[in-house]
Amino acid sequence: MLIIGEKINGTRKGVNKAVLERDADFIRKLAVAQVEAGADALDINAGTAGEREADDMVWLINVVQDVVDKPLSLDSPNPVALAAGLSATQQVPIINSISGDEDRLKEVLPLVAKHGCRVLALALDGVTVPETCDERMAVVRGLFEATRKAGVPDENMFVDSLVLTVATNSDACNVTLATMRAVKNEFPQAHLTAGLSNVSFGLPARLLLNHAFLTLAMSAGLDSAIMDPMDRGLMEALYATEALLGMDRNCGRYCRAFRDGKIGTKPEEKKPEPALVSG
Amino acid sequence: MLIIGEKINGTRKGVNKAVLERDADFIRKLAVAQVEAGADALDINAGTAGEREADDMVWLINVVQDVVDKPLSLDSPNPVALAAGLSATQQVPIINSISGDEDRLKEVLPLVAKHGCRVLALALDGVTVPETCDERMAVVRGLFEATRKAGVPDENMFVDSLVLTVATNSDACNVTLATMRAVKNEFPQAHLTAGLSNVSFGLPARLLLNHAFLTLAMSAGLDSAIMDPMDRGLMEALYATEALLGMDRNCGRYCRAFRDGKIGTKPEEKKPEPALVSG
Repeated sequence: MLIIGEKINGTRKGVNKAVLERDADFIRKLAVAQVEAGADALDINAGTAGEREADDMVWLINVVQDVVDKPLSLDSPNPVALAAGLSATQQVPIINSISGDEDRLKEVLPLVAKHGCRVLALALDGVTVPETCDERMAVVRGLFEATRKAGVPDENMFVDSLVLTVATNSDACNVTLATMRAVKNEFPQAHLTAGLSNVSFGLPARLLLNHAFLTLAMSAGLDSAIMDPMDRGLMEALYATEALLGMDRNCGRYCRAFRDGKIGTKPEEKKPEPALVSG
Repeated sequence: MLIIGEKINGTRKGVNKAVLERDADFIRKLAVAQVEAGADALDINAGTAGEREADDMVWLINVVQDVVDKPLSLDSPNPVALAAGLSATQQVPIINSISGDEDRLKEVLPLVAKHGCRVLALALDGVTVPETCDERMAVVRGLFEATRKAGVPDENMFVDSLVLTVATNSDACNVTLATMRAVKNEFPQAHLTAGLSNVSFGLPARLLLNHAFLTLAMSAGLDSAIMDPMDRGLMEALYATEALLGMDRNCGRYCRAFRDGKIGTKPEEKKPEPALVSG
């Protein structure tokens, strides 16, 4: 799993304040904490608009690169900010994101292709998320047509099949899982990514749903997520699911995470239960 | 999900003592606590052997039926104890279990058929769990041949595809999930059941693996489990997974469980995150 830490996002209050006040220490701590918790990459969203966004993005990138050595995911609707970010990053960044929107593709795909970026690609071509798997797949096919034409290799694509909340549509998660399987089937070189929290919008105890959704999505082929690596329960679900799905030979990563105190808590452990195959 | 509470099992120390000392109060509390936590049925395993097992089984059944009104699952390798149990139960019990073992089938199937019992059927025909999905399916097909011939309707079958620990074989869980899907595909009227804890044998923080395994198994069609309904994390995974897989219309059961304090804890909740489809 490629874990993209989501916390440096200027649409969040604390981060917004830190960006406006150039509070480098606040940002540095968020970067280090996410990497220590297991992030493989960090999303960078300045959360500002207009002319200042490019400056804010570059400032964030420099601050983060000072303390961690991980690829960054440049998260902006603004092509000028993306271009500025691209020239400031030390490692080839991930671009977050493209969709079926033609203007966006025209502006962003050349950057992605020129720099050999990985790119998050949303199964979306307007402002509304398509309701069915078929409709999303139609968008996804259009996206691959455009990215292949632009010279972006399929293995640099991270398709977000999108998920809506199950609060108002009980089939919402099933549609997403079906779309994930369909993408993996039709574009086997591509990766699957997801935001995990929309699935629980409007419901109580949201983390429980987000954690179970991660497990279900991984069984449908998810190999990347924009997530909070400091959500211990989420990382527990991730390590456990990797072990169960045979993605963690000899459960090495699972056992190491336990030894490092990242998952599980000894006092909560029960005594081993007797094997149940006793009839 | 049919939740079969696993705690009244005489192979566990406390229960064994209670059975031997006829400590009805201990058993009553275990029965009530499991039903209050969400058990739909209760497994009854006297854990004793030889001549006394039938008496112990009947004593347990009477004690439990005094305080809860749920079907019981009679868990014994001993046909005499099963027959005694069958005549003591107020509701038609579940029989735990049959396997491909011919002697066992000869002894137990007539009881199952005569009383219209549901029956747990293990994908096992010796003492060793078959390694591959194909081998387990061969056993399962043999089982259905025998149960159909005896007049047991497929919908009374609860097939346990069996799971071995991922500690020593990274593919163990995948084999089980594949077997579950194969059973559901070939015998669509039948149910799927599982013991959840073998998957994590020998590993630390076992509950994390058991919880994620429940979620994965439910996505493969699991609709019953022998489990500990007082394991809060397990019930959280169960309610969340039902909501995600569209098995809980409008998330009614999930929200009720939250209101009843059975899942989630308000202080642990984070503030709702902003929707991620903002690109």
